[in-house]
Amino acid sequence: MPPANTQRFLIIADGQFGPMTSKTANCCIRYMPERVVGVFDRTHAGKTVQQVLGFGGALPVVGDFERGLALGATAVLIGIAPMGGRLPAEWRGWLRTAIERGLEIWSGLHTFIGDDPELGALARERGVRIFDARKPPLNLPVADGRAAEVDAYVVHTVGSDCNVGKMTVQVELRNALIERGHRTRFVATGQTGIFIEGWGVAVDAVVADFIAGAAEWLVLEAAKDADIILVEGQGSLIHPGYSGVTLGLLHGCCPDALILCHQATRQYIGDYHGREPWVKIPPLAELVDIYERAAAPVRPTKVIGICLNTFDLSEARARDAVTRAAEATGLPATDPVRFDAAPLVDAIVQGALAAK
Amino acid sequence: MPPANTQRFLIIADGQFGPMTSKTANCCIRYMPERVVGVFDRTHAGKTVQQVLGFGGALPVVGDFERGLALGATAVLIGIAPMGGRLPAEWRGWLRTAIERGLEIWSGLHTFIGDDPELGALARERGVRIFDARKPPLNLPVADGRAAEVDAYVVHTVGSDCNVGKMTVQVELRNALIERGHRTRFVATGQTGIFIEGWGVAVDAVVADFIAGAAEWLVLEAAKDADIILVEGQGSLIHPGYSGVTLGLLHGCCPDALILCHQATRQYIGDYHGREPWVKIPPLAELVDIYERAAAPVRPTKVIGICLNTFDLSEARARDAVTRAAEATGLPATDPVRFDAAPLVDAIVQGALAAK
Repeated sequence: MPPANTQRFLIIADGQFGPMTSKTANCCIRYMPERVVGVFDRTHAGKTVQQVLGFGGALPVVGDFERGLALGATAVLIGIAPMGGRLPAEWRGWLRTAIERGLEIWSGLHTFIGDDPELGALARERGVRIFDARKPPLNLPVADGRAAEVDAYVVHTVGSDCNVGKMTVQVELRNALIERGHRTRFVATGQTGIFIEGWGVAVDAVVADFIAGAAEWLVLEAAKDADIILVEGQGSLIHPGYSGVTLGLLHGCCPDALILCHQATRQYIGDYHGREPWVKIPPLAELVDIYERAAAPVRPTKVIGICLNTFDLSEARARDAVTRAAEATGLPATDPVRFDAAPLVDAIVQGALAAK
Repeated sequence: MPPANTQRFLIIADGQFGPMTSKTANCCIRYMPERVVGVFDRTHAGKTVQQVLGFGGALPVVGDFERGLALGATAVLIGIAPMGGRLPAEWRGWLRTAIERGLEIWSGLHTFIGDDPELGALARERGVRIFDARKPPLNLPVADGRAAEVDAYVVHTVGSDCNVGKMTVQVELRNALIERGHRTRFVATGQTGIFIEGWGVAVDAVVADFIAGAAEWLVLEAAKDADIILVEGQGSLIHPGYSGVTLGLLHGCCPDALILCHQATRQYIGDYHGREPWVKIPPLAELVDIYERAAAPVRPTKVIGICLNTFDLSEARARDAVTRAAEATGLPATDPVRFDAAPLVDAIVQGALAAK
């Protein structure tokens, strides 16, 4: 396990800071606000984070990178994920400035900053750490079902699409389960979760043959000191670009239970900003069926709850959406960020007891 | 496109040469026999390839690496794929010997020989080419459905398991379709197909986020000069280790039609040599359903034929298995290697005509 995270971050989210466009930035602000000094985004410069996201309080958004560093940052965290994960050319200057001033770089991009000839060399020369959270561990196994053999109760989040709350709900559930006295571990499978937890594997960054193997290895590691393991999901089985990661993760972690996540207002797979949407999200009951059927040949599992993201709905409409989701699936449902995580926590605790 | 393959290969299959254990070696022998001088395997030394595989004629199996090179090899081809794809330590000496004598190395291992500090440096020093067939191209896209827009008719092979004939049938169909005058391209997605075709991407070796993107890119490239595109499948949707690659490939290539491949006698997913088998292969009609359902949310497609591998059955039993597969699914079925590819060729030609 790595040392505790004691950095204070300036988060880069230039041009993309917003409720639905800067997932990594937003989750870091939500789950480790005490470690964030500000956000760099020229579009929203001068506002507070609260004004842009609806949470985050008085944290400032700055439009000048050097002014951002001067807020007391000890590290720069790349808080947006461009399509494909590559390093935009313009950022090079900002990162060089940060490294020259001795600030760590935390990155979840596919392009590893540490491997960049210029930035990597500069960091080594200055003795500055670059943390490429997506860099996979060496010697991952090909999965062979060993995750099914752990004593811990494994809960995996799956979703209708990317960016609907699969990581967020696991962090909320981890906190709630620990509060109730359960030895619980959150298994991060994406860069944001790794930033928050300080440990994990970005499964979308491993060589394709080892997707399931990475999930298996994470579960085996987490089982060493936990009775409940919460495995972060990725993508969606109906996502044209990322479905392979989703299925490998589902088969590799051999979950005892699934929690299905969905953004209540979303109708189409939404990552294709430049193109017409074309993959329609089916009704929740059909999604439950798609996931249970996909898992079944390797290891049968059941969806035990629905996690709705209702951030863009009025409270009345949000409560209505939760009620309808529960009715449509016959399962406990909630928005654990907005309302109460208890329905899902109860479902997990009951499931874990029944599995003993 | 690369230059035509003019090498003469000594194939390394040490300790694993056999009908079901050396897929790459066997396919290279079957589809480019004129380019193979012999096989290195100490277990079967002194036999002919015919005696070990049931085809391949008088090609010798040698138990001494240097004697193998002396058969007239201009290149060494690594013809077996260890679990996980890594380079066994013992092979290092053989490869060094080959490079020192100026022989090319063709490898489909996950560990790139060209990146090996010792072997890569030696090859550069001697001016010897190392062809790491699994090394992915740079700058693959994240898939966004563009493969659905090509005019060509795209046929993708899917299977019950690894190593059931998904590549072999495409090579047979490619040959048969070209013979009938159709502009046809075989799209290789694994190292063996790449060895045979001289072009392709090993999709199991790309970073997980780009599985579907690699498939999309291959289809767009192949569509430039073909009316029928045959995309090699990988793994299986019910394979615990490799299912992610299978689904990414299925969604990325947006096929107009699927051909389902199965080894008639196989009952369980078979890659887990050291462990009890546990994933039972469902009936063919259920597999058809699994694949069509998995594809449907992104782009609906249909299985149009069944390809059976009957190598371990008597002719009478093989013909019976083909008949039963056709009856169980209501689809044309054949073993295109043993019998006639025509039922599948006809299904493709009819499908392509109907799609116009």
